[in-house]
Amino acid sequence: MTTIAVAGATGYAGTEILRLILGHPAYQSGQLSIHALTGSSSVGDRLGQHAPHLVPLADREILATTAENLQGADVVFLALPHGHSGPLAEALGPDTLVIDCAADFRLRSASEWEHYYGSKHAGTWPYGLPEIPGARQQLATTRRVAVPGCFPTGATLALLPAAHSGLISGRVTVTSFTGVSGAGKKAAVQFLGAETMGDAVAYNVAGRHRHTPEITQNLQGVHPDGQEFAITFTPVLAPMARGILTTAQAALPAGTTAEMVQATYEQFYADEPFVHVLPAGIQPHVKNVVGTNMCHLAVAVDERTSTLVVTSAIDNLTKGTAGGAVQSMNIALGWEETAGLPTIAAAP
Amino acid sequence: MTTIAVAGATGYAGTEILRLILGHPAYQSGQLSIHALTGSSSVGDRLGQHAPHLVPLADREILATTAENLQGADVVFLALPHGHSGPLAEALGPDTLVIDCAADFRLRSASEWEHYYGSKHAGTWPYGLPEIPGARQQLATTRRVAVPGCFPTGATLALLPAAHSGLISGRVTVTSFTGVSGAGKKAAVQFLGAETMGDAVAYNVAGRHRHTPEITQNLQGVHPDGQEFAITFTPVLAPMARGILTTAQAALPAGTTAEMVQATYEQFYADEPFVHVLPAGIQPHVKNVVGTNMCHLAVAVDERTSTLVVTSAIDNLTKGTAGGAVQSMNIALGWEETAGLPTIAAAP
Amino acid sequence: MTTIAVAGATGYAGTEILRLILGHPAYQSGQLSIHALTGSSSVGDRLGQHAPHLVPLADREILATTAENLQGADVVFLALPHGHSGPLAEALGPDTLVIDCAADFRLRSASEWEHYYGSKHAGTWPYGLPEIPGARQQLATTRRVAVPGCFPTGATLALLPAAHSGLISGRVTVTSFTGVSGAGKKAAVQFLGAETMGDAVAYNVAGRHRHTPEITQNLQGVHPDGQEFAITFTPVLAPMARGILTTAQAALPAGTTAEMVQATYEQFYADEPFVHVLPAGIQPHVKNVVGTNMCHLAVAVDERTSTLVVTSAIDNLTKGTAGGAVQSMNIALGWEETAGLPTIAAAP
Amino acid sequence: MTTIAVAGATGYAGTEILRLILGHPAYQSGQLSIHALTGSSSVGDRLGQHAPHLVPLADREILATTAENLQGADVVFLALPHGHSGPLAEALGPDTLVIDCAADFRLRSASEWEHYYGSKHAGTWPYGLPEIPGARQQLATTRRVAVPGCFPTGATLALLPAAHSGLISGRVTVTSFTGVSGAGKKAAVQFLGAETMGDAVAYNVAGRHRHTPEITQNLQGVHPDGQEFAITFTPVLAPMARGILTTAQAALPAGTTAEMVQATYEQFYADEPFVHVLPAGIQPHVKNVVGTNMCHLAVAVDERTSTLVVTSAIDNLTKGTAGGAVQSMNIALGWEETAGLPTIAAAP
Repeated sequence: MTTIAVAGATGYAGTEILRLILGHPAYQSGQLSIHALTGSSSVGDRLGQHAPHLVPLADREILATTAENLQGADVVFLALPHGHSGPLAEALGPDTLVIDCAADFRLRSASEWEHYYGSKHAGTWPYGLPEIPGARQQLATTRRVAVPGCFPTGATLALLPAAHSGLISGRVTVTSFTGVSGAGKKAAVQFLGAETMGDAVAYNVAGRHRHTPEITQNLQGVHPDGQEFAITFTPVLAPMARGILTTAQAALPAGTTAEMVQATYEQFYADEPFVHVLPAGIQPHVKNVVGTNMCHLAVAVDERTSTLVVTSAIDNLTKGTAGGAVQSMNIALGWEETAGLPTIAAAP
Repeated sequence: MTTIAVAGATGYAGTEILRLILGHPAYQSGQLSIHALTGSSSVGDRLGQHAPHLVPLADREILATTAENLQGADVVFLALPHGHSGPLAEALGPDTLVIDCAADFRLRSASEWEHYYGSKHAGTWPYGLPEIPGARQQLATTRRVAVPGCFPTGATLALLPAAHSGLISGRVTVTSFTGVSGAGKKAAVQFLGAETMGDAVAYNVAGRHRHTPEITQNLQGVHPDGQEFAITFTPVLAPMARGILTTAQAALPAGTTAEMVQATYEQFYADEPFVHVLPAGIQPHVKNVVGTNMCHLAVAVDERTSTLVVTSAIDNLTKGTAGGAVQSMNIALGWEETAGLPTIAAAP
Repeated sequence: MTTIAVAGATGYAGTEILRLILGHPAYQSGQLSIHALTGSSSVGDRLGQHAPHLVPLADREILATTAENLQGADVVFLALPHGHSGPLAEALGPDTLVIDCAADFRLRSASEWEHYYGSKHAGTWPYGLPEIPGARQQLATTRRVAVPGCFPTGATLALLPAAHSGLISGRVTVTSFTGVSGAGKKAAVQFLGAETMGDAVAYNVAGRHRHTPEITQNLQGVHPDGQEFAITFTPVLAPMARGILTTAQAALPAGTTAEMVQATYEQFYADEPFVHVLPAGIQPHVKNVVGTNMCHLAVAVDERTSTLVVTSAIDNLTKGTAGGAVQSMNIALGWEETAGLPTIAAAP
Repeated sequence: MTTIAVAGATGYAGTEILRLILGHPAYQSGQLSIHALTGSSSVGDRLGQHAPHLVPLADREILATTAENLQGADVVFLALPHGHSGPLAEALGPDTLVIDCAADFRLRSASEWEHYYGSKHAGTWPYGLPEIPGARQQLATTRRVAVPGCFPTGATLALLPAAHSGLISGRVTVTSFTGVSGAGKKAAVQFLGAETMGDAVAYNVAGRHRHTPEITQNLQGVHPDGQEFAITFTPVLAPMARGILTTAQAALPAGTTAEMVQATYEQFYADEPFVHVLPAGIQPHVKNVVGTNMCHLAVAVDERTSTLVVTSAIDNLTKGTAGGAVQSMNIALGWEETAGLPTIAAAP
């Protein structure tokens, strides 16, 4: 029997982890159980008050987020604001599998961390994006996982094969259209339905978004010659509840054809269960990945300007957060990597 | 008394022109009247069957789109598919003010036209974007207007001051999120509400969208040294009815500061009634321009990568089509340029 | 010169009043000016921080909501939570035109007020729904106006001719689908875009909604024989920003035909500038009234069960709140009743 | 090995059946396979062109809908327009399990059929709503299933316990708010995203909707004294892709308390796996059932008017169509009734 705990269980990341756990074959067969759910402002409430869609867990009580309450679980998912993971992980001990959905342990560069987050760098943990070459092996033996940010998941999967093959480097433009759940479950006027329906607005443009160094690190880390990337990342808040559509553009060596790029991508992702490279000419729809752990992506080449144009669609809460976390858990526990992770969306 | 006719009166461009005409002071004071409304599949219907929001015109009959039915109007708005404007304009004679919402007469390059539209180039008319230096003067004396495309309106206004001042040239990335009305009022499964709500999808990527050469022409036309532009344009269908949010990125000369760019933009647009450069740090919302003829825009500089990031918001049907058409009409008739053009949105 | 003040200027009712004022001919010709804008948590801010769509007023400072700050205006709009209007109105004196968007002075029955609002009844002011027989005359001479609630506006207009003609009484079912702006501009998780997009949920069902006694009062007040009404009102939160679609059902005397009811409605509203009875067989769309002061409505008769079915569409913020307030102001000041009130929506 | 065929495989009902089949344990373990997919205008296409979310079936060819192509399957799902099921079922023979999503065999009354559908009545098959007392037993032994309409599913589940216990009869009001997918996957201007986003509109009001006699039949069939029902059904098109929120009101015997009704409902549905009666005071959200086979419902009593108010939420495509069809298949094949039917939504 494996037990899990979720800290921040009433937020969107927390409830999405629980949705996936409820559908996980290990949970359904009784080999996986829920040890504790914790929160902060919701302590003492029942989960049903915050996540009425998780009917079977409606009566679970929300405890306070303390190491004490989390201790005893084999796997602890941390779905907390930045800054809490380090102390909790330390208190939980090295044998607990700690899967952190916050940013604390994602970046390798302390100076980038300090520039973007304004606090002391806590360290670096194995990065929970198994599609990055080498990451899966690291995840298989770790007890600490830094789950990628939602935008870096979509952007990295979009550009990884091109960076890894050395086709691109230098200036890259990434524009991502995200559902409102990406802002989290916090009450704020700017995220009200009345404000966001029928609207679109960019934010944290021009390098100010904290996911910028994370995308850069991922691409730089796989470039065969270690060349640098200068990412201009523009996030846009879109009038949908879930999902991220990312478009990325980068210069290609003259003469690179669409067929070459398509082949590079198909080969790179040939064995990946959660990345689906669409046939040439077909574009990914957010709707076709919502609720799933899939990334659908399309590659195209603007031959007049020798530019790579990649589009990717993910669900920010699933592959972009909770699904990535469960996928990493599966790997770290030696389970089937795909267990409990939906792949078919309820479209339309 | 000035009379107008609208060809294609039941489509989205046509009904939006009529909405603006109904609110135009010349119409309300009886100096402007509607001579004829024409259509194709809707011939014999009443306008109210197609545009129930235009209550005062509910009983107007839709005639066939023929030169005969349009003749006699002082101003003819053509809101037709590409290819119809040339013959109609010829039949209407040189004294009729013909305002064409189709693409036929927008491009100066016959080879670009043929590449993108696959037919013989019809010619070039004065371009209905008065914010382009010199355009307003041309519009003041013309009887022929080529109304810009919706994406080119948003993208050109976003980049015009930077191109005009020589700050940018070469590779430029433009990603535009458009409301579903941009696809027009044609029945097609892919644009159904069930398909588009909660979805986002890119289309005509990698230089395939016909608005690409139009944006390029606009920027190249104002660059002080006539330098070339290589635009990578990515349109994305967004889950909203109206509006376009455009983000654009281009390399800046090293050392260009945000303040310099902000000042350039504010000065360039200082006297423009329909362009609002937002204070530094504020981003434009689609919602704040819907139903209006305004373009709200924000400039930012990513100083780590020396990249200009501009965002603009317009209503695709108003400033992006019908509002631009009415603005051009006002200029060509020697009327107040702003007459009848809303500037305050009904937000939220 | 007439001056106005708006208390609660940064909420949805307040900003919508200001949108209408900006488009009011008296404001545009300089006969109407803004004396003061007040708020509570926004004191010291500029209006532009809260309502960036109201560009011309962006720099207006928000003062504290006190009688002192409101004094000196000829017209004071109160867009405040319940309970504040009485003391403010008293302090402003009898010559100030006070237009109250809260519920305080809407109900005539002190016991109904106490049952639904749990506090002492403040009194009753002339009711700002000029379409109720007799109301327009009262409004013409008053300095105090109680603006109707948004649901009562839609429901009353839907049922008024039937009640007034004695066609209906007794049990009436009213189900209203409202846009999220109906919940006001308060940060709350349940009204986030992520929660409300793609969702629908009823609330305050089974007589618990405070608008129930207001609808009842309006219908009972016009019934020729003073018969009683038992309203079952069900509000539903709908995934749209603005608008209310109301459906209402009531038993009809046997043999009542659709034609009779249609004629009754058309005659009743023949001279009303803001109520549009649709031709038989056409249903009202929320979209066709958004941003306007119009009520579109349709009547039908289920002859198998002898049931009246009426549907009405209004914009909750315009005709349902701020538009009704401005319409009442126009009447009370002896101005053209329709001045500054939009009637044509920007559809689609 | 059990084989299935789906006629009308590219429509919304057809693709939703296939989504559920892909997740069905019998399919995943190889005991269930797909024999044929058929269509009409899509013949010769691949399924991926019409339903790109069903990635594993992307290459399946669409055959013509003929008895020949469907023959050989053990289970045939018919997701066709009305009028086609009878002849096909006859040709398929009595041993094939035919599950019809059309209306042809739902009504028992030939005169009601003729009144509402204008053609000859084809007959009556066992009705695929296992929650109706007696229906499950019938379904267990049948080879013919008439799947209920989407509105009748939501409305019947909402009112069944009250009708069955004799608490209600006579006049009942049902108002249902449906997602746009309820209109099917047919290209029509009125269902475009540009038209439906931000809009709400009623249609087929006043007894004209064909689901009216079906709801009536279901309630009358369970009333202990066989009393009649007079249903006034009002469907409203809502700006969401999926889901139906139904509100229903009916007079109660004087003195009936909320507690009595709550107990009646809880007891009635105590053993139903797909109906969740919410605790008193909690309302169902469409969002919490989207993609699932669940019906969430809430009961309330307006004690001032002695009125029952019930609200139910279902997914029109799942429990309202394809889920109901698969549930019936499971019963008819003697499989676990709940197999392959999701119960937890991906909210928010």
